[in-house]
Amino acid sequence: MASQSGDKLVRVAVDAMGGDHAPHEMVAGAVQAVSKGGVQVLLVGDPQAVQSELAKHDISDLPIGNIPSEGVIEEGEAPALALRQKPKASILVATGLVKQGHADATVTMGSTGAAMAAAAVLLGTIDGIERPALGGPILGMAPNTVIIDLGTNLDCRPQQILSYAAIGVVFVRQMLSVENPRVAILSVGAEAGKGNRQVHETTELLRESGMNFIGNLEASDLPYGKAEVVVCDGFVGNIIMKLTESLGDSIANRIRERLQGKMPDQELEAIAGDIFSLTNAIESHGGGPLFGVQGVSVVGHGRSKADAVALAIGTAKRAVDSNFVENLNAELAQIKNKTGT
Amino acid sequence: MASQSGDKLVRVAVDAMGGDHAPHEMVAGAVQAVSKGGVQVLLVGDPQAVQSELAKHDISDLPIGNIPSEGVIEEGEAPALALRQKPKASILVATGLVKQGHADATVTMGSTGAAMAAAAVLLGTIDGIERPALGGPILGMAPNTVIIDLGTNLDCRPQQILSYAAIGVVFVRQMLSVENPRVAILSVGAEAGKGNRQVHETTELLRESGMNFIGNLEASDLPYGKAEVVVCDGFVGNIIMKLTESLGDSIANRIRERLQGKMPDQELEAIAGDIFSLTNAIESHGGGPLFGVQGVSVVGHGRSKADAVALAIGTAKRAVDSNFVENLNAELAQIKNKTGT
Repeated sequence: MASQSGDKLVRVAVDAMGGDHAPHEMVAGAVQAVSKGGVQVLLVGDPQAVQSELAKHDISDLPIGNIPSEGVIEEGEAPALALRQKPKASILVATGLVKQGHADATVTMGSTGAAMAAAAVLLGTIDGIERPALGGPILGMAPNTVIIDLGTNLDCRPQQILSYAAIGVVFVRQMLSVENPRVAILSVGAEAGKGNRQVHETTELLRESGMNFIGNLEASDLPYGKAEVVVCDGFVGNIIMKLTESLGDSIANRIRERLQGKMPDQELEAIAGDIFSLTNAIESHGGGPLFGVQGVSVVGHGRSKADAVALAIGTAKRAVDSNFVENLNAELAQIKNKTGT
Repeated sequence: MASQSGDKLVRVAVDAMGGDHAPHEMVAGAVQAVSKGGVQVLLVGDPQAVQSELAKHDISDLPIGNIPSEGVIEEGEAPALALRQKPKASILVATGLVKQGHADATVTMGSTGAAMAAAAVLLGTIDGIERPALGGPILGMAPNTVIIDLGTNLDCRPQQILSYAAIGVVFVRQMLSVENPRVAILSVGAEAGKGNRQVHETTELLRESGMNFIGNLEASDLPYGKAEVVVCDGFVGNIIMKLTESLGDSIANRIRERLQGKMPDQELEAIAGDIFSLTNAIESHGGGPLFGVQGVSVVGHGRSKADAVALAIGTAKRAVDSNFVENLNAELAQIKNKTGT
């Protein structure tokens, strides 16, 4: 086994069927992750499909296995309905393994909505959080700035945004090792009082929360790392994430056009790749944990390939190792005491 | 006079005192604009300050004059209060010239809130529009995509967003010469039904509007010109605009670092400048007209220098020449008939 003997392996249930390149890249990424050590992977998916992919790798002695499932929930499907119609779908079986104590975490590149619904229903949400959220450091130029929510809750109440701040604080402390994270709310001006109704109402709660709240941040501040935790509702966060990725792609292409033939191709690709990673930082983590559920569930991009899958498995391992869920529960209980909500 | 004889000059009242570089750059931009011809400029500002700037230029025979004002409304001030406290402020005097028929349009690089308030109070809003809006083609890679609202209304009702669509259609037809503009609403997914409450409610109105409504657009679609008019509320629009500018600056700086010494400085600056204009397209128009007021009022960036001021004066001229306000009134009346609102 490639892992150091004596270490307890983190057991990760990987949704082998979800994502644009499943099961091919999911299996390849899982093999890559277990080869590095520290994790055991349970590939959840159609046995035939998974086995035929596994056969392409040398997995002798590697801690990787297959748990059968039937069907997959696609990106477009309504999660709640799909969960009822496909009770043996890969994401449900994978999440069930965590619930039953057979795995410590799940990883999926499939439907985010399905992952959220499965986690909320099977694992339950943390006290004080109604619905799970997604967040992460999405700007490569500000690798310690975590933006929450990135699109799971599109009509947020101030109370929900307050809980995103608490989630962000725990995430930044645990995963990025920043002791006293600055918390800001995204708005249209830096001055206090600038913002919509949601910003005004949430600001009042944040001021009383006991967190290191520094007020408003404008979108123009985001690339400059002025806060470690930036909260916004999921509608806005999703737009920020997708616009950033798309502008990055578009600018990288323009740079390629302008520099073609003016420098060695390899050098040019390195520069274009640099722009890509500045604007697609989530790819360098493979994915982020669903926030607010009673368990670790890492969700990545549908387009992820093996490298991103392996990184996501690593992210899941780190979240388990650092007791992310337990710490979040404790932090939220503290804030609840302070704001009396 | 530099203008062609026989042409009627468009009379533009320029707020000489508003903006980070006023009055210096405002006056220089005005001189540049009148030198090109077609416009007469009334510089509204402190006579001493304006005259001492004008003295730096050769303005003999140029159609440029000074209208005195007292004080200026700064970016941070509450517009409604400032309007009462500074009744002779430059933006109020300039807008008053339009109301009294002494000018055809105003141009300011000062407080957007003050320009809006002055226009709404003195000129009035168009029937069916409660508050003015701002919009424009903010992405250089999609020069025919106009995004509205960019930050004047932070808590929009569906009815307001519907009116932005109508405004956008007229703007695109008149100013960008696209006959049947595609109208989209910004949301978190391309599929119908994806979005927040505001998107759902506005979508119903847009479907009945008789406009060429194509449904949702994601933020990732914005650089690719998939619609000519994209509507969103001002909170979201402002974030898109500021994030785009800031990412552009940040990426341009990174490119400069990476390519320093690898190509001639001039070539490198041309590439960085290209990225800047891709992500700061509003600068290449100098500014955009306030939408929904009974008159032409062009608002630009506070940081504008002479070139941008001259472009903004040109934008004001085009809006006057194309009867933008009259056409918008007519279009909105038509939509009102169709949606029965």
